Amino acid sequence: MSICAQHGIKEAVLSPGSRCAPISLAFIRHPNIHCRTISDERSAAFVALGMAQQSEMPVAMVCTSGSAGYNYAPAIAEAFFQQIPLLVITADRPPEWIDQWDGQTIRQTGIFGNHVKKSLVLPDSFSSEDHLWHLHRLINEAILEATSFPQGPVHINVPLREPFYPAPGESFDFSRSVPVTQPLRGTPTLSQEQLIRLKENIKKYRRILFVPGQQKKDDRLKGMLEHIHKIGTGVVVTELISNLQNGDAITHPDFLLQNTTEKERLVPDLIITFGKSILSKSLKQFLRSTPANHWHIQTQGYVPDPFQRLTKVIHAAPSDFLDWFISQELQVDKSYTAGWVEAESRIRQKLPLAMENATFGEFKAIYHCLKHLPYPSKLHLANSMAVRYASFLGMKEKRIEILANRGTSGIDGSNSTAVGCALTTKETVTLITGDMAFFYDRNAFWHNYDLPNLRVVVLNNHAGGIFRLIEGPNALPELEEFFETRQALTAKSLANEFSFEYNAVYHESELLSVLPNFFEKSLKPKILEVFSDSVSNAKTLKEIKAALR
Amino acid sequence: MSICAQHGIKEAVLSPGSRCAPISLAFIRHPNIHCRTISDERSAAFVALGMAQQSEMPVAMVCTSGSAGYNYAPAIAEAFFQQIPLLVITADRPPEWIDQWDGQTIRQTGIFGNHVKKSLVLPDSFSSEDHLWHLHRLINEAILEATSFPQGPVHINVPLREPFYPAPGESFDFSRSVPVTQPLRGTPTLSQEQLIRLKENIKKYRRILFVPGQQKKDDRLKGMLEHIHKIGTGVVVTELISNLQNGDAITHPDFLLQNTTEKERLVPDLIITFGKSILSKSLKQFLRSTPANHWHIQTQGYVPDPFQRLTKVIHAAPSDFLDWFISQELQVDKSYTAGWVEAESRIRQKLPLAMENATFGEFKAIYHCLKHLPYPSKLHLANSMAVRYASFLGMKEKRIEILANRGTSGIDGSNSTAVGCALTTKETVTLITGDMAFFYDRNAFWHNYDLPNLRVVVLNNHAGGIFRLIEGPNALPELEEFFETRQALTAKSLANEFSFEYNAVYHESELLSVLPNFFEKSLKPKILEVFSDSVSNAKTLKEIKAALR
Repeated sequence: MSICAQHGIKEAVLSPGSRCAPISLAFIRHPNIHCRTISDERSAAFVALGMAQQSEMPVAMVCTSGSAGYNYAPAIAEAFFQQIPLLVITADRPPEWIDQWDGQTIRQTGIFGNHVKKSLVLPDSFSSEDHLWHLHRLINEAILEATSFPQGPVHINVPLREPFYPAPGESFDFSRSVPVTQPLRGTPTLSQEQLIRLKENIKKYRRILFVPGQQKKDDRLKGMLEHIHKIGTGVVVTELISNLQNGDAITHPDFLLQNTTEKERLVPDLIITFGKSILSKSLKQFLRSTPANHWHIQTQGYVPDPFQRLTKVIHAAPSDFLDWFISQELQVDKSYTAGWVEAESRIRQKLPLAMENATFGEFKAIYHCLKHLPYPSKLHLANSMAVRYASFLGMKEKRIEILANRGTSGIDGSNSTAVGCALTTKETVTLITGDMAFFYDRNAFWHNYDLPNLRVVVLNNHAGGIFRLIEGPNALPELEEFFETRQALTAKSLANEFSFEYNAVYHESELLSVLPNFFEKSLKPKILEVFSDSVSNAKTLKEIKAALR
Repeated sequence: MSICAQHGIKEAVLSPGSRCAPISLAFIRHPNIHCRTISDERSAAFVALGMAQQSEMPVAMVCTSGSAGYNYAPAIAEAFFQQIPLLVITADRPPEWIDQWDGQTIRQTGIFGNHVKKSLVLPDSFSSEDHLWHLHRLINEAILEATSFPQGPVHINVPLREPFYPAPGESFDFSRSVPVTQPLRGTPTLSQEQLIRLKENIKKYRRILFVPGQQKKDDRLKGMLEHIHKIGTGVVVTELISNLQNGDAITHPDFLLQNTTEKERLVPDLIITFGKSILSKSLKQFLRSTPANHWHIQTQGYVPDPFQRLTKVIHAAPSDFLDWFISQELQVDKSYTAGWVEAESRIRQKLPLAMENATFGEFKAIYHCLKHLPYPSKLHLANSMAVRYASFLGMKEKRIEILANRGTSGIDGSNSTAVGCALTTKETVTLITGDMAFFYDRNAFWHNYDLPNLRVVVLNNHAGGIFRLIEGPNALPELEEFFETRQALTAKSLANEFSFEYNAVYHESELLSVLPNFFEKSLKPKILEVFSDSVSNAKTLKEIKAALR
């Protein structure tokens, strides 16, 4: 624990258990580590993820032996692909007791498979000095691995023998000196020769498209992209989850590509990306259909090929690359640039009216919610329709950080991730979610920690509405029972259970009258539940798309 | 699906998703497979486990790609150690799209690690006839593996390309002939020479102890054990979870071993076991402390050494072995046999009065519930205190099947397992559980299937009461926040949400007046919530133990 604390770990999320007691107690009693306890390990892990997402520092998670650790797995996969550092500590029986029919014992070594950056097993006896060095070394290694780029979860499995509890009066000594390996990490920098060759290379392109993926807010990057878009050396498409949206760039790639009659004119010859995944299916499909080359900028590590056109990986800091790019004199195909700008401005002109005219439902509810968000604040968007709707609309810069579990795009931990976020900040944290994701992860709220800054908008259509929005299942006789899976719950009962403030909304006027107060300060979290009908929601989305044509 | 159906698979539990739609539809449309849809995959998997536990036939589970499958993991580990056959089918992207930042995509191959008997990946293209043979062969292999001893879960990962949905009007042809590999499984039988050597061997022992582990009801085995115990050639200790309890054998090993002053007299020289784990910590510790040899009877496969004394593994059917055992003429140490019988009868004499005199709380509530159970019926006991309390008390044969998730001894799926059981039978299914296990797995009830035969007794002490019952944490200042993890919920709200019948009970007289009606037939499940205080519960258990001394 002392090593963890000296590496700057400040938060731990514990789940109760007996075998893990020695580890939990060491965290609880450490003066510099703040502990919380959450009983459902699935939620606990997503809460830890939500916290680490904010701090960009590992959050320690501790659970007992047996299947407890497996409940961590969905969050660990999400953290792995979203590159969020977690120190996942599972208590275990010592190796001789595995597979001996003892309680809470599974084959725990390596249970997270390929979804942790590293999986370690601590020594189970300390009969020599080397064992202690090994222990210390492994903990240092785990933290260095979790915090190196790309950040991610690391699993430490800890075999423990009884006794698990200190004798009455026995105390922990945190003043003992422990060996700490501190990282000092440089940034890869391209040499002059490399830059000269790159200059020759980039001069060949006339139609450059920047598509930053999901990432944390970065005002410097945002400023540079804004500049590039303005002077027209490249077209910049910023999705909501890129946290780089601003007033000028292309912010409605979905509507734009679905409605343009001039797709030919928009075809880039070079796609430049950095960050993680992009959301828009229309944009991905469009880019896959072009003959463009694709360069990805990333300091190090594995690079995917999401557009099937990856021709160059540039190991450098994105900001250094953009700095260099801005300094280049490039020939531009002005028809291409103008094509994007005109298409975007057509959407921007038509969208407000299309939205105002739209029938009230979940899409319009999101539209109004986004306009009322306080700032600065944080917005969590659940999979799958909430994040898509919000992304369709885009958002002008209002100092709002956008978060969404797009690592695995699951619905399994949206509530808990937002809860974890709310525990790290005094800013308002708003979660917009559907009923399926909301009830799936209802144990996110099953603990004793106050969340006065949390606001949850539940779009309840009593089903997995996405299945009615996509072609295919919507024509099947099995739609209702097996795809939408109609469910009857409302959030009211949950709000009562946890003494959250609660408002139900069925009409647009109700929503508009409730929204201003919804974001006012309170002692308790607030839930705003917007009821709508999935048949009508599907119709509305079609109407809006038609109105944008 | 046709292969599954021809292997006798009759039930599938589906979770909604788009990529899994082709698989789900094939199950849904197959005339001989009954499908249900459950949204939370964690619960869905335990429901499937609860169903397969009854049928001893694989239940198929289908979920979409991404972290969905990881939510199956806790149930899969439980099924693996409880040896329950499951056919775990996860949809996946085709291999070229893994790690390319597409939604709902993780590294799915082999995600269940060492907790499935086999992990298969179906072919992702069918460009040759051999691919179809490969597909059919893999499905046959999977089912054969899941159903061979020891039964267990098998994972089939299915890479799928679009389209996921059939064209309107397109139908599935289940009449096509598919190759099916049928198993015909023999039972290992010992030769005459082997039996002669075994006879020489067993003659050396005078103090034989039979300790059957957790298993399904088996009246033939039970009759043979009863006979052995009666004629005194061996002492038979039957725990509640062995489903072999009867009026005569030793049924209170915990209380007996905790209270006897004559442990020396009870020491066996040979322990004979079959089945899976045993529950009693006192019994395990006692057996580990003896110099006895341990023989385990099991037709095939890996055998653990839970008492650290395993000297012989006999690959034969337990009933064949018992038949042979009964036919042997053995010398018996009568003081040993009498020692057990006397100690057991002392407990039986004192227990009723000790229970009647005990302060009302969770233990006494279980005592009364057990007495009121209808029969035939099924009783699910949740980890960790419910199953322990019930096991302390034991139960005379009343045609009640006892079930408990003692594979991994987790609290994560008790509700769902009982729900799965209730879906397979018209008998009453009673679940006795604590508040932590109950709320942990509350999504067990989040679906649209009726459960008129389900009865849930929730022992609500607003905390993980076990931590106050064990020495160690009960003396720590951190007990309440970090171990017991006090929680405020009651089951009333959940009962309202799902329109279950609900009774709250605070006093013994209330419980006694509610119980008879509780087990009466109804259209809805019933929840009986017994409130108690964890401090008082701990005191009561101590008092009862003292009264038995």
